[in-house]
Order: sequence, then C-alpha cells, then structure tokens
Amino acid sequence: MITIGLDVGGTKVLGVAVDAAAPGTVLAAHRIPTPHGGEGLVDALAGLVELLAAETAAPAAVGVGVPGLVATDGTLVLAPHLRHLRGAPLTGQVRARLALPAVVDNDANCHAVAEQRAGAARGASEALMITLGTGVGSGIISGGRLLRGGHGMAGEAGHMVVDPDGPPCPCGKRGCWERYASGTGLGRMAREAAQGGRLDSVVALAGGDPDAVRGEHVSAAARSGDPAAVQVMDQVAWWVALGLANLTNVLDPSVIVLGGGLVEAADLLLDPVRRHFAGLVMAGADRPPTEIVAATLGEEAGAIGAAALAVDLLG
Amino acid sequence: MITIGLDVGGTKVLGVAVDAAAPGTVLAAHRIPTPHGGEGLVDALAGLVELLAAETAAPAAVGVGVPGLVATDGTLVLAPHLRHLRGAPLTGQVRARLALPAVVDNDANCHAVAEQRAGAARGASEALMITLGTGVGSGIISGGRLLRGGHGMAGEAGHMVVDPDGPPCPCGKRGCWERYASGTGLGRMAREAAQGGRLDSVVALAGGDPDAVRGEHVSAAARSGDPAAVQVMDQVAWWVALGLANLTNVLDPSVIVLGGGLVEAADLLLDPVRRHFAGLVMAGADRPPTEIVAATLGEEAGAIGAAALAVDLLG
Repeated sequence: MITIGLDVGGTKVLGVAVDAAAPGTVLAAHRIPTPHGGEGLVDALAGLVELLAAETAAPAAVGVGVPGLVATDGTLVLAPHLRHLRGAPLTGQVRARLALPAVVDNDANCHAVAEQRAGAARGASEALMITLGTGVGSGIISGGRLLRGGHGMAGEAGHMVVDPDGPPCPCGKRGCWERYASGTGLGRMAREAAQGGRLDSVVALAGGDPDAVRGEHVSAAARSGDPAAVQVMDQVAWWVALGLANLTNVLDPSVIVLGGGLVEAADLLLDPVRRHFAGLVMAGADRPPTEIVAATLGEEAGAIGAAALAVDLLG
Repeated sequence: MITIGLDVGGTKVLGVAVDAAAPGTVLAAHRIPTPHGGEGLVDALAGLVELLAAETAAPAAVGVGVPGLVATDGTLVLAPHLRHLRGAPLTGQVRARLALPAVVDNDANCHAVAEQRAGAARGASEALMITLGTGVGSGIISGGRLLRGGHGMAGEAGHMVVDPDGPPCPCGKRGCWERYASGTGLGRMAREAAQGGRLDSVVALAGGDPDAVRGEHVSAAARSGDPAAVQVMDQVAWWVALGLANLTNVLDPSVIVLGGGLVEAADLLLDPVRRHFAGLVMAGADRPPTEIVAATLGEEAGAIGAAALAVDLLG
C-alpha cells in the first residue's frame, strides 16, 4: 500500500511516495517551488500527488506537513511562511481536492513521527524530536503516538520563554528558547563575541566584518580547534541543553532526537549538549539516562513522517 | 469495590477509602503523622490500610502518593522530605507488606488524576494539574491517562528554568519556575517590595518588620484593595501565567487546574493569571481557549487520586 507525504516549506514542497510496510524507504521523490497566494498551494499539492502516483501506484492516503499550527478541525491557525492561508480550512481543502483520505499536521510533528517509525527514535514509545534550524520546531511522541494536545497545537517548545529579559522574538515575547537554541541564536552569540573582539579568526573567515559573522564561520573555526569559537559553540550547547532539561523534567522522554541545520555541526554540539544536560535536568545523577542523538532521516524526514501519518488514517 | 488511597506528606499521611464507582466520594478518612527513618513508613501505611478496611471493606488495591519521583521500576528516586527512603524499592516494599496490588506515584500526579476523574477537569482527555504551594508540583493527563514518560518521572514542571539569572533553587539551578509561581515566590517578591518601601500597609500587617512579610499578609491587603499589594499579586500571577503558557505551547491542554496553598487566593489570582496567559501563550488571539480553573477536591485530592490509580491496576 502506497501513501504519499508532502512537506511544505517556505520555498519548496517535497513530495515522497512510501510503501506502508517500509516507512523509511522513499520509492519516489519530487520537489516543486512553494506557490504563494490564492488557491495555488492545494492545486500544486494535487499536481505533486499525480506525479508521484504515476511513478509508483495510486496512493491510499496523503499526509501533508506545513510550517505552522494546524488545529484539530483542520484549520491552519498560524503559519508565518504561508500568511495568505492563515485561517484556511486546509485539511478540508486538501481532502476535497484530492478525493482521498488526507491529514495535515505541523512539519516538526511529521519529523517526530518519521524518526520514531524509521529513524533515530525507532520503536521508542516516549520520544522528543527537536529541530534546531532558523527557529526551533518540536514534536512529542508519548505512548507511541504523536501528542497533539486538546486542540492539535501541542509541540511548540521553541516558544518556551527561558529568559523574560532576553532578546525579542518575532512572536512578540522576549527570550523564547529559539532565540538561543538555533542557527539564529548561534549567529547572534557569535556576532556579540566578535564585536567584543573575542573571535578574530572567525571574523577573518567572515571577510573581516564582525557583523557578517554567521554560524557556519563559527563551526568551521571550532572544527579547526579555535578556542574562542569552541567557547561560542559551548554557549549555544548550554542553551540547547537548558531547554532539553526543561522539557525532560516535564515529559521524561527515553530518547531526544535533534535535527535541523544546527545539527550539521553534531560533531561539535552533541557532546557539550549531553554534558550540560546532565547538570541541568532534575535529579541528573539519579535518574535513568535519556539518550540525546542526531536525527538520521535528513531532509526527507518531514515528508516521510507525513506519509506515515497518512497510514494512520487507514486504521 | 473499595480501593484505598494514601497521600504521604512531609508531616502527615492522609488515607481514604473510596468506592471505584464513585471516585470523588470519600467513605472513610484518617490521618497519621509521617514516620521518619527506618522501615517505619511502610508499617505505618499498612496500619492505616487496616484501619480504613475495618471501617469499610477489604480493599482490592492500594495507591500511594509520595512527595518525590518514583521511577517505573518502583524506586523512589528523589524525595527531599523522605531522604531516608531515597533509592528504596518503595512500590515493591508496599506490595510485599500489604499483599495487595499497589501503585506508588508522585503526589502531584495523584492530584492530577483526582481532578480528572472527579474534580475540575472531570472527563478532560488533555489536562494539566499544577499545585502552587511551597514549591510547584505538576501532573499531565494526555489521551485521558497520566503521562508518566519513559522512566515514570514526567511532570516536574516546577523545575523548568524560566530565568537562568534568577534566584537559586534548592535543586541546584537558578530561576526554576517554582522560585516565582509559589507561596515562596509570593513571599520573596513581597519582601523585596516591602524592603523597597512600597508595601507599608502590608508591613503593618506583619507587625512592622519588612522581613516578616509573608504571602498571607499580601493577599489580605490585596483583598482589602491595597494597590501595592494588588501589584505584587499581579507580579506573581504574571510568573504563574508565564509557566502555564510555556507548558501550553508544549502540551496544549484543554483545561489547566490550579491547586495548592497559593490558590486559596484564587479570587485574587485567577483573573490576572488568565489575562497574562492570553498575552503569553503562542497565537493567543487565534487558538481555541484553554480553561484555567481552581481545583475542587481540596486537601483530600492526592489521596483520592492515589485510590483512583489503584483502580487502574485492576484493569
């Protein structure tokens, strides 16, 4: 049985066709640019489904991951990258257009399902997926299933406030976790260090301008052993660990999977995150260990997870 | 069918006998002092069970709530008020001594189960229980059941760090939520205001000594309309709301139940908590409302919840 998973991003839509019996194996994949405005998105999704079906078989159901909050009734409540669709009854529109069972969910939720069915958290009944990218996305698995909450809006850990006097967040608050535990946070902390004259080799990599320092300059310098760059990576790792400890106190997952752009520096980040986490989580010395690992499914994870959620529709 | 619930506190143990068909109705109740040291606690629990059984009927199972973390294997991992039992295989000891099916769980988890079966969150499948006392306890209901996590240690929201530069916490970190959203937090904020000369009428209630100001002086003054006292209550309400918003972003409960000593001032606290929450939770203007209500089961809630968890043992 084939299901199709579609991962809608700010700039492109990735579609995959998957056999329900092998949820981690992509049988066919295509990318299209994300249409912006009007009814274009749903039509584009339908076109992608046709293309994938033609290369594999007629799908039994379709799952869609979107960068936003999807309420239990299928309404897209909040989606900064798809503003024209805010308030749209998206699940209903997709079902009507495709004439197939369909589910629409948050992209980080899809990513969590993918890693739990076929990736780094395979088979775990209590797991936490955190994507550390420009912002922070999260998805919670509890009792072996996605925790969606009372209105379908669970899993927005990136907007947990960890310092009310911290930097302003586009969401309107200050000091959200994603201001620190993200590529954006790494860039800001690096520029602060650079402006303070503490990151000369990194500034050189950025062409001599402290304001041009980005995360990849820091990770490159840290990888070559520059102590000041290692220190900035450690600072970011501390903030990542702080949020993971907060979430572990609340949810007690057996495994935490880290994905997203920041984890391309997993070799620099994971060990310090684990070390800081042990000191920050409650009863760190006495509790059973919580694994902290990197995601394994890469860029296709969201689409793979959406396809897996589509399987669930069929009971 | 009768089950017995025992709520172990720092100073006393409350036991109740409950009919499984009417989980909120206490048929018999007794209190004893909490024994400290040695094997005394388990013997005392057995005595309390005998007493309650004699007044009702032989129980089918027993539930015990303790102020600490209980791992899935029944080990008491952390219990600041029962230090001599740290690391004890408590569930096994209780089962062996009583020769009955028995479950031991965190007291705030028991409280959550009670409010969900027979109190303010009755019938809710996604609910959050927060006890605002000397510290902060919490219990999470998801999918209609207690969320225990991978090792039985979920629901410790009081030690979510909300300001890494905040006041030190006995747990070893700084700025845990319970440093603010508790009777302890109210007292501290009130003394800070009093020492700054902003709470003269409250200081008068405390006998003229700013360092003697306690939470109940503030709530008494606020209830009589003193603007400075109302402002301190509002400050505490903001911190309560901040943590509830963090947890709602993560868990998206339909209903949040607030209990504990601080909620004796519910008339002063609930409205400001609700108002601040709406501004702090993600997509506050667009998401379906989350109810925030006071607990209804009072001091017997923990024992009632323990008795309800005992029912679950019987399938």
